Amino acid sequence: MFEATKVGRTVSKQDFKEQQEELRTQLLAVQRDLRVSNIPVIVLVSGVEAAGKGEVVNRLNEWLDTRGVQNFAFWDESDEERERPRYWRFWRSMPARGEISILFGGWYQTPIEHRFKDACSEAELDGELNRIVDFERMLTQDGALIVKFWFHMSESDQKSRLKELSRDDKSRWKMVPDKSKFSEHYAAFEQVAERVILHTDRGTSPWYLVEAGDRRYRDLTVGKTLLHAIRSRIAETTPDEPNGTIPGPDLPESPTAQITLLDQLDLSLTLPRDDYKSRLKKLQTEINELAWSAYNQKRSTVLVFEGMDAGGKGGAIRRITSAVDARLFRSIPVAAPTDEEKAHHYLWRFWRHLPRAGHITIYDRSWYGRVLVERVEGFAADAEWRRAYSEINRFEEQLVDSGVILVKFWIHISQEEQLKRFKDREDVPYKQYKITDEDWRNREKWPQYKEAVNEMVVRTSTKHAPWTLVEGNDKPYARVKVLRTICDSLNEALKNPPSPTAGYLPCGEKRPMGK
Amino acid sequence: MFEATKVGRTVSKQDFKEQQEELRTQLLAVQRDLRVSNIPVIVLVSGVEAAGKGEVVNRLNEWLDTRGVQNFAFWDESDEERERPRYWRFWRSMPARGEISILFGGWYQTPIEHRFKDACSEAELDGELNRIVDFERMLTQDGALIVKFWFHMSESDQKSRLKELSRDDKSRWKMVPDKSKFSEHYAAFEQVAERVILHTDRGTSPWYLVEAGDRRYRDLTVGKTLLHAIRSRIAETTPDEPNGTIPGPDLPESPTAQITLLDQLDLSLTLPRDDYKSRLKKLQTEINELAWSAYNQKRSTVLVFEGMDAGGKGGAIRRITSAVDARLFRSIPVAAPTDEEKAHHYLWRFWRHLPRAGHITIYDRSWYGRVLVERVEGFAADAEWRRAYSEINRFEEQLVDSGVILVKFWIHISQEEQLKRFKDREDVPYKQYKITDEDWRNREKWPQYKEAVNEMVVRTSTKHAPWTLVEGNDKPYARVKVLRTICDSLNEALKNPPSPTAGYLPCGEKRPMGK
Repeated sequence: MFEATKVGRTVSKQDFKEQQEELRTQLLAVQRDLRVSNIPVIVLVSGVEAAGKGEVVNRLNEWLDTRGVQNFAFWDESDEERERPRYWRFWRSMPARGEISILFGGWYQTPIEHRFKDACSEAELDGELNRIVDFERMLTQDGALIVKFWFHMSESDQKSRLKELSRDDKSRWKMVPDKSKFSEHYAAFEQVAERVILHTDRGTSPWYLVEAGDRRYRDLTVGKTLLHAIRSRIAETTPDEPNGTIPGPDLPESPTAQITLLDQLDLSLTLPRDDYKSRLKKLQTEINELAWSAYNQKRSTVLVFEGMDAGGKGGAIRRITSAVDARLFRSIPVAAPTDEEKAHHYLWRFWRHLPRAGHITIYDRSWYGRVLVERVEGFAADAEWRRAYSEINRFEEQLVDSGVILVKFWIHISQEEQLKRFKDREDVPYKQYKITDEDWRNREKWPQYKEAVNEMVVRTSTKHAPWTLVEGNDKPYARVKVLRTICDSLNEALKNPPSPTAGYLPCGEKRPMGK
Repeated sequence: MFEATKVGRTVSKQDFKEQQEELRTQLLAVQRDLRVSNIPVIVLVSGVEAAGKGEVVNRLNEWLDTRGVQNFAFWDESDEERERPRYWRFWRSMPARGEISILFGGWYQTPIEHRFKDACSEAELDGELNRIVDFERMLTQDGALIVKFWFHMSESDQKSRLKELSRDDKSRWKMVPDKSKFSEHYAAFEQVAERVILHTDRGTSPWYLVEAGDRRYRDLTVGKTLLHAIRSRIAETTPDEPNGTIPGPDLPESPTAQITLLDQLDLSLTLPRDDYKSRLKKLQTEINELAWSAYNQKRSTVLVFEGMDAGGKGGAIRRITSAVDARLFRSIPVAAPTDEEKAHHYLWRFWRHLPRAGHITIYDRSWYGRVLVERVEGFAADAEWRRAYSEINRFEEQLVDSGVILVKFWIHISQEEQLKRFKDREDVPYKQYKITDEDWRNREKWPQYKEAVNEMVVRTSTKHAPWTLVEGNDKPYARVKVLRTICDSLNEALKNPPSPTAGYLPCGEKRPMGK
């Protein structure tokens, strides 16, 4: 989930200067609109140690009109606070309608710290997170806008930032008392953070993960995100008001700030043809054997294939289906929904095809269409695709909890490679059926799709159900990576059969799958 | 919470026959409207053993056009079901848009059974209930209407119904293997049911508690509730459609079916004047001593007073405030909110006044205004007051969890007594300020208020924060009952100081109040 905060986005001094001016003007304008609206704005500032949360808040106070902004840090409780129910301090910090409260850590601070220090169990943390979800929903239902920032950076960046800070007397290493165990601490903290963010990332009060390695990028991103969030929220409430908010011009974005996870893929990777043939053969034998082992162990497998048009999903899937005993798998090509499917919840069509114990379902495109094509083409409303992330995470959690082996692929190609393949398809008679006007239209929306894919990976790549990003420009390389990944996942999962009760939801049916 | 299902509502054979005809006509009409709508309807049928869930479903199938209705019972899982994630069986039973699925027990059945048999812990139950809340929200956000019925009856009614059934070979005592322990089982089951209902009673998928002692009342109530729920839901989606659903005539209601909890209060109770004086004096001494003990133990107290206009709230409160050391309490009269209060969430104004450790806050009217005056007068939108029940329950849960002693009173008087008091106020010069035109206007809405009070008590009288209903026609009697109840609650609570950690929310600040 945090991969996208480690891609190295930066903004130059010059760019920052220019963009800051425009951003500031627009923030002040939107703040004026906000004041006459009915919307209280709650900004939560959280993240890893030394990410510069204080700097960000100072920056926001510099940019905004401070008359409508209040900052709240939650240090040790005062005796006034200690003598009342826990949330009293947060209720005290609530903004009035039209105003902004910026909360350091807010209600997330204590649960994260306690779990990190093992002062509470995972189940207790989940209980608290559920209360938080209820609390935030209550506020947003009342009209509040909640904008939650999580600042993150790579291990090495954090380490050097902490060193920098420790030279400066005003700061201290809060979370890491023993510096020699830094890596362990870093990983443990990430794990807690992922759990907290996944649980509380709801469409109505989403988390924004911000890469904090570069201060200028970090601050501009926060400013733009906040601006956009307030502006959209005001627009929602006054859709027809002619004198309402006039959206400002699009803010410029430095090229060095636009890097996504997909840009980090090394699309030049290739596999020599000879090498490919021998490896493929071995992998195909292996995958068939593993499929039978899974069948005997009654473990089901779900394979998800997503990717850009002409990315090579079909080819990769064929390398599986030609190898695995046909009695063991079903391949589900996902196109436009049928009438019957349209009459149900969008997840219903995928639930139908879940495999029986020991079987494999291959989804050629999947439930992720909700946050990809449906988002980009506007088939799903804004609120619909935004809440789909948590719906999907919950769905996949159920699969994994019940013992299903879940592997998800995004096969990526460059825009040039796609063009080459499209032309190729037009030229070769037996490939012509594969290319339509729609493909060309989709191609024009490449940047929107890229953005959607990036957000999808950020919000749905979890410890239990991670995405595998596949460098797809070279088909042999991609196919071998896909098969290798599936074999590894099956091997790993079959070595660790779920215990008769572990993984099954408490209070639910208690039975090992297929028994 | 279940008090309202034990008041003995009945419907005569003759009334049933007449009403059934009209109800059936309207149900068929609304089903036709439903079919062309976009709404899938999920009806959940749950409740205590022998309440006649099967009979109800048969009745619905008799009344409705079965072409749009499917029934699902969840017996032992089939092997097909067992080999897939738990919820697969429920996804299979989902209605298409425009159709109705009636589910026996549904996703509530297993968690309730498992908790009742102690096969899972309370925390595990809560975890499962949170998943259920998410699941139901996902469905309702997608447009589904979920109507959840809980059938309940008194212990003696259930006992005789079970006897009746056991004479009949087709049925059996499922939940109570040992008949001699019936009372214990009954209480334990109620406790689990209360927890489940409280947790999952959300504005968008509320529970309807139905008294099941009289079959005719039970069936008519289910039919009318379902009719009303579908009709309202259709009206929401097609507000401007001229050819949309035309609300049918109000269905008749037998007088014997209209009894509420309030009707069960014996308003003829009185206390002789001499008796009153001596008792009052003793209670006032006691309450002051208890207030000081609470102060020393750093336990806070919140007293809530609600009641019909002229019910005697002020008089009762004065008997407290004249007895307790003025340094220990604050009395908060709740009238129209201030500008500042209006700019915040409606609970904010009550959070502000929460007492410090060892102190008492008396709320003369309270947050319950949301589901009383704001509901009846239309100040709060339908969705707003409907979701307020769970917001309030959660709020009070926080108070009690943090060690606050919470006592809630509804002081009730008859309509005649109110008239007498109103006239009295008009006649006595120093009481004239207490009576306004508004009071007379409110009086005209007596039935609506009564309905709102009844629903309030049903949905917010919990084990931790029960309502005390006070028979208020005789002021001395009412005042003594109020003081007696407060003293008892304080006594009880002070004898059981919360342990340093128990009751405090896990993963939150772990500190005893005021320490």
